[in-house]
Amino acid sequence: MNEFEWIDRYLRPLAKSPGADRLKNDVGVLRSAGSPLIATLDTLVEGVHFLNTDPLSSVAQKLLRVNISDVLCKGGVPRDALLSIAMPTSFTESDFASLCEGLRTDLDDWNIALIGGDTVRTPGPLTLSLTLTGACLTESVVQRSGAIVGDTVYVTGVIGRGGLGLSDALRGEESDHTDHYRIPELPPAAIADLIAAFATASIDVSDGLISDSGHIAGESGVSIQLDLSKVPFAEQVHDAEGALTLATAGDDYQTLFTAAAEDEHRLLATAATLGIRISFIGTVGQGDGVKLSFNGEDVSLPALTGYRH
Amino acid sequence: MNEFEWIDRYLRPLAKSPGADRLKNDVGVLRSAGSPLIATLDTLVEGVHFLNTDPLSSVAQKLLRVNISDVLCKGGVPRDALLSIAMPTSFTESDFASLCEGLRTDLDDWNIALIGGDTVRTPGPLTLSLTLTGACLTESVVQRSGAIVGDTVYVTGVIGRGGLGLSDALRGEESDHTDHYRIPELPPAAIADLIAAFATASIDVSDGLISDSGHIAGESGVSIQLDLSKVPFAEQVHDAEGALTLATAGDDYQTLFTAAAEDEHRLLATAATLGIRISFIGTVGQGDGVKLSFNGEDVSLPALTGYRH
Repeated sequence: MNEFEWIDRYLRPLAKSPGADRLKNDVGVLRSAGSPLIATLDTLVEGVHFLNTDPLSSVAQKLLRVNISDVLCKGGVPRDALLSIAMPTSFTESDFASLCEGLRTDLDDWNIALIGGDTVRTPGPLTLSLTLTGACLTESVVQRSGAIVGDTVYVTGVIGRGGLGLSDALRGEESDHTDHYRIPELPPAAIADLIAAFATASIDVSDGLISDSGHIAGESGVSIQLDLSKVPFAEQVHDAEGALTLATAGDDYQTLFTAAAEDEHRLLATAATLGIRISFIGTVGQGDGVKLSFNGEDVSLPALTGYRH
Repeated sequence: MNEFEWIDRYLRPLAKSPGADRLKNDVGVLRSAGSPLIATLDTLVEGVHFLNTDPLSSVAQKLLRVNISDVLCKGGVPRDALLSIAMPTSFTESDFASLCEGLRTDLDDWNIALIGGDTVRTPGPLTLSLTLTGACLTESVVQRSGAIVGDTVYVTGVIGRGGLGLSDALRGEESDHTDHYRIPELPPAAIADLIAAFATASIDVSDGLISDSGHIAGESGVSIQLDLSKVPFAEQVHDAEGALTLATAGDDYQTLFTAAAEDEHRLLATAATLGIRISFIGTVGQGDGVKLSFNGEDVSLPALTGYRH
């Protein structure tokens, strides 16, 4: 075992940008932007955020994507990454190579420059942290706190795949949903343009649709009324109970946002042009918290509105 | 145990900058700079990079300082931080408060804005990762690769305190050196000005003086001749063996750099004005690797030139 050889062999080839200096300097150089530069940091721990049976290449992609999701939902374009790998004693060269293969795929696909990081040993489980910067397409960063009474609530893609995928994976079943659980399907990169043009507030759906709606409501000082029968769930739901299961499951990594009601037609037309699936799922009102309905009937808020990692 | 309350109570008050948005957004906003923006990421694992008997406030300061050291040695001014805390199941509110107290001290002292991060659970040991950005005082970032034949080699402060402190700490003894082992004493912030004005190559001494000299030599394609009898060691050394022990111990977090020989007088005068202790410890020559002498006698390179974390 010589992790320095592993870094030379697998990790250094991924760090191709000038700012990375082949990971041979003490620091990486961030690419400058004419717009605000944002940064996010997420950590994944084996046995907590991924299963020890998950392929390590998919774990690496998940690590990148949970961070990309944060940048996209703020109307940002992903740019530079720093990576921390804390490797357990049982970690093999083949494990390291698999991890780097997953990294390579998504760094290339999203045009992200790996510019630095740290590789250490741990007596504990594999622990991965990624810092990702992004260049905002707006002059000021979209916050969770910008929703205004009368706004409309939208979500991209479908909701519930993360939760369904985790259930399937725990049962040892492979499905389209387990693919998403391991390598989250993100909204298209063009979502950043849509957010920059229209969003008054935004968040990525990581804790669960209801919980994350609550974050926007709480930070904006408004209430959010969600019509669960309009939510594009990953499988057909027959009643409010089924809807609640999927709306509280988390790990969706879609973008939830609010926009002015009068922009609805222009927004939907732009989304169609950009090839982004979005759904109108609710409205912003006075008061606080999240209020739910299903086919016109009020639905009580469940005790657990989301999954907290 | 409710880590969300802990975050509200202890961590959020530290995130005072506008770009942090009280840690209530999905991303932090990096402060723009008219100069290159650099970033570094270091991870500390309990039982590997610190002892489980070390006070958590000092562990937090060490985490910040190992990163600050990287920024300073490149001629940069520390700016924004993102923090990942992976907490073991045994972690208490008092532990969290102690960690945040150490963070507060050094964030304030170094005027660093905590703008984001992640707090997760781990079945393993406490694992802390910090990403720190810095604004360079130069137009292009000082690399490890810029040393030129004929340059002079300098180091700030004293060498060997990290190693002596670890030995003392492992024996259960408290000393001036254990203070440095737990909360590394860094060169003054003004070292960034000196580096920006004079350095052709630089690195921070974290692996050990000889090992880190080797990194500059290797990246620059030169040899470095160190006169160990000129190195400002933390305790008096009587022979080459004693010098080698301290020159290979690591965890010094001083700045090692090269500069043009003709700048010597101006450099020493500037250092004196800025109140920075620096020592002339060697020269850059043709060839490769590190060559050692002690009181005019050649000294063989030890098999282990530094401590690798």
